[in-house]
Amino acid sequence: MQWNRNIILMISLLFSSCSQREQPAVQSSDNIVIVIHGGAGSIIRSEMSTEKEQIYMQKLLEALQAGYDRLKSGQSSLDAVQAAINIMEDSPLFNAGKGAVFAANGKHEMDAAIMDGKTGKAGAVAAVQHIKNPIDLARLVMEKTPHVLLCGSGAEEFAQQQGMTLMPEEYFFTEQRWQQFLEARGKDTVRSESAREKKFDTVGALALDNAGNLAAGTSTGGLTYKRSGRIGDTPLIGAGTYTDNQTCAVSATGQGEYFIRGVIAYDIAAMMKYRNLSLAAAVHEAIDVKLTGSGGSGGVIALDRQGNVAMVFNTAGMYRGYIRNNDVPVVMMYRE
Amino acid sequence: MQWNRNIILMISLLFSSCSQREQPAVQSSDNIVIVIHGGAGSIIRSEMSTEKEQIYMQKLLEALQAGYDRLKSGQSSLDAVQAAINIMEDSPLFNAGKGAVFAANGKHEMDAAIMDGKTGKAGAVAAVQHIKNPIDLARLVMEKTPHVLLCGSGAEEFAQQQGMTLMPEEYFFTEQRWQQFLEARGKDTVRSESAREKKFDTVGALALDNAGNLAAGTSTGGLTYKRSGRIGDTPLIGAGTYTDNQTCAVSATGQGEYFIRGVIAYDIAAMMKYRNLSLAAAVHEAIDVKLTGSGGSGGVIALDRQGNVAMVFNTAGMYRGYIRNNDVPVVMMYRE
Repeated sequence: MQWNRNIILMISLLFSSCSQREQPAVQSSDNIVIVIHGGAGSIIRSEMSTEKEQIYMQKLLEALQAGYDRLKSGQSSLDAVQAAINIMEDSPLFNAGKGAVFAANGKHEMDAAIMDGKTGKAGAVAAVQHIKNPIDLARLVMEKTPHVLLCGSGAEEFAQQQGMTLMPEEYFFTEQRWQQFLEARGKDTVRSESAREKKFDTVGALALDNAGNLAAGTSTGGLTYKRSGRIGDTPLIGAGTYTDNQTCAVSATGQGEYFIRGVIAYDIAAMMKYRNLSLAAAVHEAIDVKLTGSGGSGGVIALDRQGNVAMVFNTAGMYRGYIRNNDVPVVMMYRE
Repeated sequence: MQWNRNIILMISLLFSSCSQREQPAVQSSDNIVIVIHGGAGSIIRSEMSTEKEQIYMQKLLEALQAGYDRLKSGQSSLDAVQAAINIMEDSPLFNAGKGAVFAANGKHEMDAAIMDGKTGKAGAVAAVQHIKNPIDLARLVMEKTPHVLLCGSGAEEFAQQQGMTLMPEEYFFTEQRWQQFLEARGKDTVRSESAREKKFDTVGALALDNAGNLAAGTSTGGLTYKRSGRIGDTPLIGAGTYTDNQTCAVSATGQGEYFIRGVIAYDIAAMMKYRNLSLAAAVHEAIDVKLTGSGGSGGVIALDRQGNVAMVFNTAGMYRGYIRNNDVPVVMMYRE
């Protein structure tokens, strides 16, 4: 059984084993990379069915491919990040867009951010309802307003002014999330706070395009049964999302409050810039030392301008993957 | 006339001239310091009446004294920061609490954050209406919830659950802010974006208490005629507000979007921690080099654990001051 499942994983990954080093030093000037995550948490092989594993692997591959196709055709890293996140937002598998969790008020309140490593510009939305693809709205905030962060009904009003169709509540309904909500409401606890069930299905993507520009984006439904109006790290530049071409691109997933207080995403960039650490060393410091030391759970994906990738988490697993240049895609979910 | 005004300033400052060095190195273990700002902007001596000058000086002194009294009586740096900010929130002079500006929807949407340098805990609120003292609500978020940031009606609901009285719209009305709103609406521009009138009356306070703990807080009404739901740097940990006992405490005022993109408050701490810069050198890098280089306007106050104070801005002036130990208060508004 275990053997069979490994065979299937190997098939779906093709010949990925040769690409599983997370810190290769690729220095080509014609260097394109897309990296994604679909959330960190208690993702344990013994608790996964083969079918579920396959469904996640396929969707992660689809998101990677969507981003990669943009890069391959010469589009910007921003376009690639947005395309990859859209796939995950449109899937009920992840806690973003269509699969967003229910807040304590029984509604879906979503956060997202996108940032451009070339210009340092950023856009974000927080506590928005009715938005099919919050990452698209974040990009509109970046490109069509002088602001970085819009929240709540003001952000939804802006969406309508930009011609976006607001979705009815029913669009976001999934039976799985509803059951999680009922369970959390029964216990009256924010779900991810229970030690038993630490799972944060936030999605994120990073890209490096042909022009050498980095981009980062993150999108989430937040925490099941969270207090209405709670904003996590996802839409906060420097906390859950950050990039600049000088250093790296970062997208986080986990207990948002720990990432906010530790300014985790920017801290990785700061350690590269000021301590001259490599991407791998900076990410290790931020997650294995700082986040873990503060008692927080979660992980990040990170990408530098040389195309180095780091995917580090202190949870059991993290849905993650990348495609670099013409290499076969790498998709992983467990710790190994 | 100019001579008279200087005499009055000197009287109100008592013998402050001996304390105007912004970087003294006080190393006493029994070291208490309170630092405040009432916003940076086009504060120009030739455009100030003596009366207006006096009114601002008195209110800044009152805020400093309120914070200082807490420290002197052995209360925490958090209590001191909150007390100083409360005085400015309750005054119509500053763009926070009672004097908050009008958003484009004709309402008052306020942001605030507070952070504890000892524990790294933080609380913040964004786009809240009806809250007399947003800094008090930020502290309740820090102390009574597992969250850092609550926005909008969810934050107001939390305020009511905590026994806070919501204020009617009329409480926040001031004729001056209404006229500014009408002018901005007439031109259909966010007021602080016009080159002519760059003024950001955000308030902030930092403190170092007897136990050697730092705290930081910031409170604001944001930008006149801003889009409803726009969140600036004030409530974002690492952007407009930050502290940890290892490095320093920082509160910012200015064009929030530049502070968000530059993660300015945390960047000062990061440069102290990773580059071993002094407080003065780190603040200079963050404001005179990074913020100015990015095209942003504003300033910060900063305080380290040795009691060093930095108050740096790239605008014409900044309302600011501090009291250290038994020294006479220092209050300034112009560049001198």
